[in-house]
Amino acid sequence: MVVLGLDPGLERMGYGVVRREGSRLTAVEYGVVTTPRVETPARLCLLYDRLTEIVGRLQPGAAATERLFFAKNQTTVMDVAKALGVAQLVVAQAGLSCREFSPPEVKLAVVGNGAADKRQVQFMVQRLLGLAEPPRPDDAADALAVAIALALRPPV
Amino acid sequence: MVVLGLDPGLERMGYGVVRREGSRLTAVEYGVVTTPRVETPARLCLLYDRLTEIVGRLQPGAAATERLFFAKNQTTVMDVAKALGVAQLVVAQAGLSCREFSPPEVKLAVVGNGAADKRQVQFMVQRLLGLAEPPRPDDAADALAVAIALALRPPV
Repeated sequence: MVVLGLDPGLERMGYGVVRREGSRLTAVEYGVVTTPRVETPARLCLLYDRLTEIVGRLQPGAAATERLFFAKNQTTVMDVAKALGVAQLVVAQAGLSCREFSPPEVKLAVVGNGAADKRQVQFMVQRLLGLAEPPRPDDAADALAVAIALALRPPV
Repeated sequence: MVVLGLDPGLERMGYGVVRREGSRLTAVEYGVVTTPRVETPARLCLLYDRLTEIVGRLQPGAAATERLFFAKNQTTVMDVAKALGVAQLVVAQAGLSCREFSPPEVKLAVVGNGAADKRQVQFMVQRLLGLAEPPRPDDAADALAVAIALALRPPV
């Protein structure tokens, strides 16, 4: 089973693709889709194209994203929500289910503790995937954590 | 000049297409794209397909949407923001600019008063477009108001 995890953002969207074979997890690919500082609709276009390419090439069987919460900066959250909408669109167009996990759900699945700190999560992501180094940058590590949470959950 | 106005929503997205010839405005088409109560990604897919069809068929030269503000119901606003992201994507994929107007900007353009009430706006939308009846439903009327605001503004 191959799954896609996404850490939504308009300027930077982390993605991580994880394969599960029995209890063994491996990272297929991870990284960050970045968009230049142009108008939001043009950024959404770039995001759509890149995510469509990634989904088409790596052929995950399911996807999940981090659930958004409202923060202090309303403009930023609105932009992230638009980017999340485009990500969910791409996933649905590929015929995949797309779950949303809250940050505590991701932490619980990866570390066994819903209140774990970022460093613990990154440590366990590296360990569970058998990576030689902690995954970088943070957006990609967060996306891999989401993918692991999805891979380890029973199917819906 | 033909322009598209959108009143964003996930369950109901109003659209209105207005033609301007000199100072004369006419409604080319208006209505509401509705999505059934399925999962959000599937709704975004339907929205994408319908909006792409509308833009392809009516060939507007520019587009605008209402700008979103945070309301009490966070889940609803998040869904509307996702839908707005998909709408902006469709518009950008068609090579069109996509402005965002605040509700007072729309009212100012249509009624000449940024604090005008909904009924005044609907009255002026009907009048400016020479419609026999007030446009219905409200989402479509709001979208037409956005289109009028765009049509009456000097090009960027």
